[in-house]
Amino acid sequence: MDVRSYLSGYVDGEGCFCVSFNRSDRHSLGWEIRPSFSVSQNRDRAEVLEMLQQHFGCGTIRPDRSDQTLKYEVRSVSDLIERVVSHFEKYPLLSGKQRDFEKFAVICRWMYEGRHLIRDGFNRIVELALAMNSSGERKYTRDEIKL
Amino acid sequence: MDVRSYLSGYVDGEGCFCVSFNRSDRHSLGWEIRPSFSVSQNRDRAEVLEMLQQHFGCGTIRPDRSDQTLKYEVRSVSDLIERVVSHFEKYPLLSGKQRDFEKFAVICRWMYEGRHLIRDGFNRIVELALAMNSSGERKYTRDEIKL
Repeated sequence: MDVRSYLSGYVDGEGCFCVSFNRSDRHSLGWEIRPSFSVSQNRDRAEVLEMLQQHFGCGTIRPDRSDQTLKYEVRSVSDLIERVVSHFEKYPLLSGKQRDFEKFAVICRWMYEGRHLIRDGFNRIVELALAMNSSGERKYTRDEIKL
Repeated sequence: MDVRSYLSGYVDGEGCFCVSFNRSDRHSLGWEIRPSFSVSQNRDRAEVLEMLQQHFGCGTIRPDRSDQTLKYEVRSVSDLIERVVSHFEKYPLLSGKQRDFEKFAVICRWMYEGRHLIRDGFNRIVELALAMNSSGERKYTRDEIKL
């Protein structure tokens, strides 16, 4: 049994690599870009969330809004790159979710390099992010976000 | 990357070990006991179901009743013992679902040995099965099933 491969399988089923956009006066371009890696689980089965937190050595576990589930989440861009992305590059997802992960990894690296702080980099991140998680709903459209 | 460990992780999140009971005139005790191992997935992410089918070398993939998802399922008791249970004994689930799996494995072995065909064995299987998947709903209560 290889626990790192097991965790990748678990995340392939239950995990989410997401990039959300929120209007923000505190950010120079008027938008906060928030990448996050999260895994939700019923409260009575929190063991794997704790294993993930221990394995990655970062992130928080807290009740989700619905209060019926717990959510493990990593939001720090440096933790995402150094701990989360690096794991899934060695132990990749084997479903189509891998394509979302690859876009997510590019976005995290660009943000780490500060490319999101200039218009061109920001717009390229918007394009990549809106090609992710195509089944989910978005608060804002491409045209609303792009600068 | 170890694909067998990965598949166990995936199943820990998305899989179900279930034992259902249906009234049946064709069965000597008046009940059919049906153990099944299943994993459901959105249609756009069927890759892992196909990997599971290939890895276990048994089972079917078909649209679930809702028609929005696909379901990989193994129902044959001999396939369950020889291919499914043996896998998860080598690559165990790391969440509380492991406790359901262990009961499931006992039930499959007892059925393979024909113990479900006599009243005492049948009743012991009912007890074990009703202690599984405690969050799910049951069509029949313990008192309705037990002989």
